[in-house]
Amino acid sequence: MKIPQERLNKYRNLRRDFSEEDYVNLQPIQRGGALTEEAMKAIIEFGDGYSTCDWCPPKSARLDMIENPPIKDFYNDLAEFLGMDTARVVTRCREAMFIAFRMLGAPGDYVVIDGLAHYSSYIAAELAGLRVKEVPVGCPPEHRVDLEAYAAKIEEVKAETGRLPAAALLTHVDYQYGNVSDAKVVGKIAQDYGVPFILNCAYSAGVMPVDGRGVSADVITGSGHKSWAASAPTGILALRKSLEEKVLKRASIQGDLTNRNFVSKELALLGCTVMGAPLLTLIASFPEVVERVERWGEEVQKARFLVGELERIQGVRQIGERPKRHTLMHFETDPFFRVSQSHKRKGYFLYDELRSRKIVGIQPGLTKHFKLNTYGLAWNQVKYVAGAFHEIAEKYGLEIK
Amino acid sequence: MKIPQERLNKYRNLRRDFSEEDYVNLQPIQRGGALTEEAMKAIIEFGDGYSTCDWCPPKSARLDMIENPPIKDFYNDLAEFLGMDTARVVTRCREAMFIAFRMLGAPGDYVVIDGLAHYSSYIAAELAGLRVKEVPVGCPPEHRVDLEAYAAKIEEVKAETGRLPAAALLTHVDYQYGNVSDAKVVGKIAQDYGVPFILNCAYSAGVMPVDGRGVSADVITGSGHKSWAASAPTGILALRKSLEEKVLKRASIQGDLTNRNFVSKELALLGCTVMGAPLLTLIASFPEVVERVERWGEEVQKARFLVGELERIQGVRQIGERPKRHTLMHFETDPFFRVSQSHKRKGYFLYDELRSRKIVGIQPGLTKHFKLNTYGLAWNQVKYVAGAFHEIAEKYGLEIK
Repeated sequence: MKIPQERLNKYRNLRRDFSEEDYVNLQPIQRGGALTEEAMKAIIEFGDGYSTCDWCPPKSARLDMIENPPIKDFYNDLAEFLGMDTARVVTRCREAMFIAFRMLGAPGDYVVIDGLAHYSSYIAAELAGLRVKEVPVGCPPEHRVDLEAYAAKIEEVKAETGRLPAAALLTHVDYQYGNVSDAKVVGKIAQDYGVPFILNCAYSAGVMPVDGRGVSADVITGSGHKSWAASAPTGILALRKSLEEKVLKRASIQGDLTNRNFVSKELALLGCTVMGAPLLTLIASFPEVVERVERWGEEVQKARFLVGELERIQGVRQIGERPKRHTLMHFETDPFFRVSQSHKRKGYFLYDELRSRKIVGIQPGLTKHFKLNTYGLAWNQVKYVAGAFHEIAEKYGLEIK
Repeated sequence: MKIPQERLNKYRNLRRDFSEEDYVNLQPIQRGGALTEEAMKAIIEFGDGYSTCDWCPPKSARLDMIENPPIKDFYNDLAEFLGMDTARVVTRCREAMFIAFRMLGAPGDYVVIDGLAHYSSYIAAELAGLRVKEVPVGCPPEHRVDLEAYAAKIEEVKAETGRLPAAALLTHVDYQYGNVSDAKVVGKIAQDYGVPFILNCAYSAGVMPVDGRGVSADVITGSGHKSWAASAPTGILALRKSLEEKVLKRASIQGDLTNRNFVSKELALLGCTVMGAPLLTLIASFPEVVERVERWGEEVQKARFLVGELERIQGVRQIGERPKRHTLMHFETDPFFRVSQSHKRKGYFLYDELRSRKIVGIQPGLTKHFKLNTYGLAWNQVKYVAGAFHEIAEKYGLEIK
């Protein structure tokens, strides 16, 4: 149906309402996805629809076979970088999890999953027809996943169904507290039971070193737009050789009249995946990503510094494991909540105060607790953020130690 | 694992090896995906990872609820534009088909599908656990789908399984010949049997007018990077109201320890889908897309003109329906094949000759038959292409009528 042009004006000149250059953005899920300069050049060059496919090899006609741009090489280097044998770029980390669940499990099977897993892990299991058995999370304020309990949960599944779970999934770094779980512990348990071990590295791979081989991961899933300086949507699926045949199984369907078949296509990927600009940003940022994970120690130092500075405000407390081993952090901030109750802007006062200081990314309206991420900020930016919080605290008469 | 920087140099300064400004690109699947100026601005603005999600509403936390940028409004306008009730942007047209198959069918069900369907339609069915029953394609050179045969095929499924197929899928315009099938015929048959009708508009919606209501489509699938001047990957899933509940069913899985549930999330979409730059290009190009489909008649005229000019070369023949009603066309080109046999560059001579005239997009190496697409080319470009083919034909002594 024809839509009147005046109704379409809102789609013209689309802008974010702040610029990453002028503002400090603390958005918990955005720090690791900010593009590198190389990625920005690539997105302009490969913006057009299928431009990635200029040199699709006619015979194999598969994204992972394209050599110009160097997609084939990239997939190999990506696998090596993660300490895995094979890698594919898929549309989202959640799709990578779905693919693994779908191809490793049969409907009705269980997957053992940590209680801090992201919602998308649960939904991926449901879409694959699987059930979840949760591994418990310890007490506040640290909320650590009880890693040793994976063994008991695998036993529980065995007792209940007579067979092993389809997989054990651990969220390497969780979205809620930014806790880093020791993947080795779960890798060892899974290996002992012969259960495939899926490590969801959405918040780890691409910002911090991850060695799949070292932690006995059978599958690694990752998120390009979360942690690899890439545009959305990009997910990473990396595999041990032993699972390749199963997870990347080729299509076997055949036309009953035409007899057409598609045996070169990878079934669960639906053939080609991210045939466009986001993939090219992932590739273009890769050299910088390989370097930046080596600087992870310094990123953690900045995070710990900010925790220390924010906790100088009486009543503010970082929750999740201590000391921080990741740049995603979660604070309980009761004093700001008390301020909000008598402020005419209510919970939005904190957003306003930060924004007027050119700081964005803390969820508007929240004051009781909030998350933020310092990944990739310069020291002077981190110090500026600390100072801004102190200034706001002082303005509203909160005590600073 | 650390990868040496020298091995990473190939990922720097990624370039296409031609520029769309200097070359005429006839690539059969790329014409409809070239970005508009508005889309190019949007991709730069929203290149960073999750930048689309700056204003994700905390409570619903779903892509289709975001009002800034105007994603929510866009989804509504998109549905209206297609003559449907609800729309979602998903990662690829094939994913839209998978979602429809997965949610409308049960494992083992059949889907009735035209014999010209793209490979991704078959694979989507396989991943959803469905079987295909093909509708026959008529004789060469026109290769028209026998639309009336949908009724017989639905009957066949009923006789064989005792129940109706999960869906009937018609490829509105096929990838092989660019034939336009009369969707109304299949819509009527599907409606009479009470079988959901899925119209795959990867090559139609976004370049030519499509009215889902007028053809009784229950589901429309589309491809942003193929036909909506958007970056890959973007797919479109548009629905009749009556199927919304089924296809966009919410997640029902629940954690057994945490009791967490995710009832706001759309199961088969795995929650949010294209949370990034490609979606913004689709939105930014939309005002122009709404306009451009009105100029479809002129696009077909340009296609027919080129067919006429190429067929002046003795032995060259357009295959698929005649006269053309789409800009994607397929030629048998025996005379060029004869030239290739004694040429030192073999089949690549045609690519070389075209490329030296700044024309790209016909698959390198092909001379016996090839596909091309004139969508969106200016008249002078189409005439230039015709002239170039004549020049090449003359150079190699082929006869021109």
